[in-house]
Amino acid sequence: MAPKRVTVVGSGNWGMAIATIIATNTERHPEFEKDLTVWMFDEEIEHKGVKRKLSVHFNETKENVKYLPGVTLPRHVIAEPDIKKAVGNADILIWVLPHQFVPKTIENMGPVKEGAVSVSLIKGGLELEGGKLGLCSDLLRKLLKHEVAVLMGANVANEVAAGQFCEATLGCKSAEHQGTLCKLFDCLSFRVNAVDDIPGVELCGALKNVVALGAGFCDGLDYGGNTKAALIRIGLQEMKIFIRHFYPDAKDSTFLESCGVADLITTCFGGRNRKCAEAFVRSRGSKSWDQIEKDLLGGQKLQGTLTAQEIWPVMKAHGLCQKLPLFTTIYEIAFNGKAPWGIVKLPQGMPASAFAVDDGFFDKK
Amino acid sequence: MAPKRVTVVGSGNWGMAIATIIATNTERHPEFEKDLTVWMFDEEIEHKGVKRKLSVHFNETKENVKYLPGVTLPRHVIAEPDIKKAVGNADILIWVLPHQFVPKTIENMGPVKEGAVSVSLIKGGLELEGGKLGLCSDLLRKLLKHEVAVLMGANVANEVAAGQFCEATLGCKSAEHQGTLCKLFDCLSFRVNAVDDIPGVELCGALKNVVALGAGFCDGLDYGGNTKAALIRIGLQEMKIFIRHFYPDAKDSTFLESCGVADLITTCFGGRNRKCAEAFVRSRGSKSWDQIEKDLLGGQKLQGTLTAQEIWPVMKAHGLCQKLPLFTTIYEIAFNGKAPWGIVKLPQGMPASAFAVDDGFFDKK
Repeated sequence: MAPKRVTVVGSGNWGMAIATIIATNTERHPEFEKDLTVWMFDEEIEHKGVKRKLSVHFNETKENVKYLPGVTLPRHVIAEPDIKKAVGNADILIWVLPHQFVPKTIENMGPVKEGAVSVSLIKGGLELEGGKLGLCSDLLRKLLKHEVAVLMGANVANEVAAGQFCEATLGCKSAEHQGTLCKLFDCLSFRVNAVDDIPGVELCGALKNVVALGAGFCDGLDYGGNTKAALIRIGLQEMKIFIRHFYPDAKDSTFLESCGVADLITTCFGGRNRKCAEAFVRSRGSKSWDQIEKDLLGGQKLQGTLTAQEIWPVMKAHGLCQKLPLFTTIYEIAFNGKAPWGIVKLPQGMPASAFAVDDGFFDKK
Repeated sequence: MAPKRVTVVGSGNWGMAIATIIATNTERHPEFEKDLTVWMFDEEIEHKGVKRKLSVHFNETKENVKYLPGVTLPRHVIAEPDIKKAVGNADILIWVLPHQFVPKTIENMGPVKEGAVSVSLIKGGLELEGGKLGLCSDLLRKLLKHEVAVLMGANVANEVAAGQFCEATLGCKSAEHQGTLCKLFDCLSFRVNAVDDIPGVELCGALKNVVALGAGFCDGLDYGGNTKAALIRIGLQEMKIFIRHFYPDAKDSTFLESCGVADLITTCFGGRNRKCAEAFVRSRGSKSWDQIEKDLLGGQKLQGTLTAQEIWPVMKAHGLCQKLPLFTTIYEIAFNGKAPWGIVKLPQGMPASAFAVDDGFFDKK
């Protein structure tokens, strides 16, 4: 069988970091074509006084000076600014774009190879269509008409690029593709485990950013470790209640994979959503989310507020607000002027426990 | 029915903190005698130039200046230095001593009331007797000959004393006692959930300190959030494998209670074991654990190293070392001179996942 060609669609911080991992694997496994293509949006940059295209600079230096400065990628990572050329020959497409850019990109890119598969690394992008919750991987599947897997986990991009040990979870239905895709991502410093619960994996990746806002509110109020740990625990419970409402088959074990508890921990302690939510509380209402994002994230986007806004109509339409007092309170603090200390005074009182009934958290419907 | 008398056996940092919680409940619930007795070991202290007994000073000022300075307890909390008097009339005994003091204290205290119950808040104190793992609550049950429950959770003492919101887990077999004991501990800022899995609750409380050593090694090596989250996740998995080996009936849900994932998070980010393990790595072998404990903990004890030493012969006797590569590596770094970065290079490679098989983490034997 011909070696499979791989293209990373997107060249932001996380796109570049995952390209460093994938490139080591396309080099050592004969199943893959060694050269790794990265679709790089053709923007003009100025670096050390010289103005030129980001992709031109990258292909000469192998450094993405805008999104992952300081890291030199292997020589066989090649930036391609033409989306049609970048994806036309690919057997495996790795999606690492902000979700709002997905439809336009697919519209511009033309046909893909017969039998190609995609992996979505996009966290977020939920919508309610015909009363049903739609995932970003659903949208990709619909538009691309081929199999779409997801990859999520506790994967802060700069740490991954620096080669620090971490884990990730691949959500993929087909056992055959699971094997190939694990090989594409898994290495000694980036351990990948495959499960077949795509919605569980993908929704953990999106919803954890909402919980992280709550963690940031805690930090902004100078609450200690006890309170934050309780909030993270309740957050995990509400993620499960939300996911199970729409996907009753979501697996118990998914919540304990890297995409679940591990990503939640990383995000609630180190993430940008936590950081902005802390600033939101400390500003005492004097700064909007847009302002905070601009001040603190240097061009990156705040995801948790967006996801909170995406799930709010979904929660209302499905009568979930009462069942999700933490998510509801986080939304009200973020957008309805509720006092932040409401975070420890939930509507019906803080739920005494997620797990009142034996194995209640992990029971199956 | 006569109101129940409550005695807290132990007056260290956590003993005083939990006394502040209990005292509010003995006051508001008629089931309990309002006055709360605290057995206070009769040590001499010097406070603002005056030397006297700690209990005398406490009963006058309601402040334990040695173990919880700055917090004034309610007037109805009464220190009693005579162990016989402190426990002789009690219907409910709350145990908050270092576990090594338990046998001697019980030897000295004389008979307890018929029908009395105990709650152990003691984290640690495992032994192997006749090939079976013995818990501190087992020892109390054997010596006291009455029912013994346990209370564990993400409960840093000073934060509890300051009234910050947190949760805790009560492990208790009898439904009747569950009700009474929840009432004794539960309040708006300290939410208690009861489960009937005593060994699960108690062992989570002990083993989390071993994982915290691993987290401290990570911090000492300046690893980032991804690596630490992976380590915490694998630590939770190994806690479960260890506990299930000895108690196959340990409940799935226990690991997601406050005593499980929440206490683990708090301990791996804020605890004293984490702090000392970080210092151990940073000292590059120039300081012993005893020295680090003395330098950093101001008289408090390091629990994780003790628990690691307690479980080591247990792990060896039961052939668990291969199944618990993280626990094994933590022991070897702490006591056998293994290089700390072994923490991300476990013997058989870092386990790709805790959950390779669907629901494998929470399956029952």
